[in-house]
Amino acid sequence: MNSAIILLSGGLDSATVLFLAKAKGFKTYALIFDYGQRHRKEILRAKKLAQLSGSESRVVKISLPWAGSALLDKKMRLPQNRKIIPREIPATYVPARNIIFLSLAASYAEVVGARAIFIGANAIDYSGYPDCRPAFFKAYQKVMHKGMKAGVEGKTIKIFAPLLYKTKEQIIRLGLKLKVPYELTWSCYAGGARPCGKCDSCLLREKGFEQVRKVTKSLGHQ
Amino acid sequence: MNSAIILLSGGLDSATVLFLAKAKGFKTYALIFDYGQRHRKEILRAKKLAQLSGSESRVVKISLPWAGSALLDKKMRLPQNRKIIPREIPATYVPARNIIFLSLAASYAEVVGARAIFIGANAIDYSGYPDCRPAFFKAYQKVMHKGMKAGVEGKTIKIFAPLLYKTKEQIIRLGLKLKVPYELTWSCYAGGARPCGKCDSCLLREKGFEQVRKVTKSLGHQ
Repeated sequence: MNSAIILLSGGLDSATVLFLAKAKGFKTYALIFDYGQRHRKEILRAKKLAQLSGSESRVVKISLPWAGSALLDKKMRLPQNRKIIPREIPATYVPARNIIFLSLAASYAEVVGARAIFIGANAIDYSGYPDCRPAFFKAYQKVMHKGMKAGVEGKTIKIFAPLLYKTKEQIIRLGLKLKVPYELTWSCYAGGARPCGKCDSCLLREKGFEQVRKVTKSLGHQ
Repeated sequence: MNSAIILLSGGLDSATVLFLAKAKGFKTYALIFDYGQRHRKEILRAKKLAQLSGSESRVVKISLPWAGSALLDKKMRLPQNRKIIPREIPATYVPARNIIFLSLAASYAEVVGARAIFIGANAIDYSGYPDCRPAFFKAYQKVMHKGMKAGVEGKTIKIFAPLLYKTKEQIIRLGLKLKVPYELTWSCYAGGARPCGKCDSCLLREKGFEQVRKVTKSLGHQ
């Protein structure tokens, strides 16, 4: 059985990817990050999702001694109530976040002998994040090929970003088929006890579910 | 004045790179890692070197919840008393280490607005480490160009590995000119209070200094 590392934030996208990798027959290893994010609640949700899906999991703790992002720095303002997310890089961009996350996934993969890394990155809703774009993943693939023992030995670890070109609606439809327990996922950036309903992440999530409900209703399913 | 991040382990090579970057006129930011290495002593030395060189410094702590390397796992045996280090990948290889270190350097660079990252990697003595080879750095350069805000905005951060093709002897000669306080650097992998004198790192260091002394003597300088 092939093994795969899943970058698991505890959000809707990465949870879908976790269950997709399971459905594809991979033995799954969930990699969870504790990097000082405001929305620490997602860590608990990620652990729960890993457990429910029968995955092994590891939490990597990184103390970043700098901020530079509204996701890390509570003094910075989270964008709120934006109907349309502009194509510019948002304040929630964390410098080099996916470069960091993939580097640790690469290490974990090599240690457990996994040949695949799954990431729930999306280039549609979050076109602003440069580390969610196809050209970035292609370049990273080469780094893992050239810079790792596995790569040098011809066992290059592959990055899969199966949600890259899907809308939130399509992601949720896929997840519902896979029976992803979406009630356990956590999307809100704000770090409160309940979702704020205003940050980009809450709004995208809500819009996605609304679209799914609308179409489902028009088909007479509800 | 241009700013540069220096990956500073506290060893001979990275200390030389730090003083080289200073000599080239960069404002230097030393990045030090606490990643569970046996030879934690190098962290204290790195801090001291950063301070002496007038650099800002940050320590990033990473809890790696897996081992897979003799540098992290005290139960694994360090290679000892090897006269020649074979071209194979040694037990001290840490899966994806430089991929991880560079990812955090990229993040730090973006936050402080640095356009350069200096790394003391060497492809001569340690030809076995795939993440010390030129092709790896070239690929990583592209990741930072494609996957970061700085890159997208045309301010790509450049990786400099000025020791890549130098022998240990050449590195020490360069460092002596730059007045690197080598007595403060720490090379031993073993994690004892004094250098073990047997690990690859101790032997390479000793051989380098011996060669410098030999030539210096034959020129009548001692």
